[in-house]
Amino acid sequence: MYALGTHLLVELRDCNPEILKDLNKVKDALVSAAKEAKATIIDVSFHEFNPFGISGMVVIAESHLSIHTWPEYSYAAVDIFTCGDIIKPEVAAQYLIRRFESKTPSVVEMKRGILSFDNEKRPHKVCEEVVEVLS
Amino acid sequence: MYALGTHLLVELRDCNPEILKDLNKVKDALVSAAKEAKATIIDVSFHEFNPFGISGMVVIAESHLSIHTWPEYSYAAVDIFTCGDIIKPEVAAQYLIRRFESKTPSVVEMKRGILSFDNEKRPHKVCEEVVEVLS
Repeated sequence: MYALGTHLLVELRDCNPEILKDLNKVKDALVSAAKEAKATIIDVSFHEFNPFGISGMVVIAESHLSIHTWPEYSYAAVDIFTCGDIIKPEVAAQYLIRRFESKTPSVVEMKRGILSFDNEKRPHKVCEEVVEVLS
Repeated sequence: MYALGTHLLVELRDCNPEILKDLNKVKDALVSAAKEAKATIIDVSFHEFNPFGISGMVVIAESHLSIHTWPEYSYAAVDIFTCGDIIKPEVAAQYLIRRFESKTPSVVEMKRGILSFDNEKRPHKVCEEVVEVLS
């Protein structure tokens, strides 16, 4: 299966709330995660909310990383959306799990932009191979 | 089930490629979608890539909207991440499906930050109600 993008939905539960409420630490963690994954950073936007909680985006040439933190629940929602074969989103996810000290993280991988004509081509190819074997 | 965030993963297939490659049209569509959903826009960041393709983020007080377009495949990946009960992410999704003229869209809804103690409380509450009815 060939997809245009790989999207990791990272649930960072049981994190260190003191890190989740620190704008500079959250920003540095996301930017560093992008660099760890060998991404090319294009733009960075982080904002702090009252009473607490931080939202941040790191736009990369290979798509984006985003985070929303709820320090009061020791929770952060992270998305790592990448395209291409060079960047490794799982490296960024593992790095962020360590940086936020998440004790019970979970990661869901979604394939985005699955190209249907790739799926249609595969059975045709298999049929041809079978014919060759039988002849 | 109570979750901190609602995340719509929108696959915009069979779109109008001329719209997907137009930076101003893509930016206006995302910003307008945020306004349609009654979101409070905090920051906007859009970038065009060579040979074509646009990445954009709209940071809102209620989380974010993002888009990555592949005009060569008439495809765009949109994420609409919201928190709170006032904003309606499905309104933004429906608006973007129309704006990009997607003929075969799909939407996956993910609940982010499910609060486990809410799930634990519910059965206790039900037990108490049953006792009251029987006594």
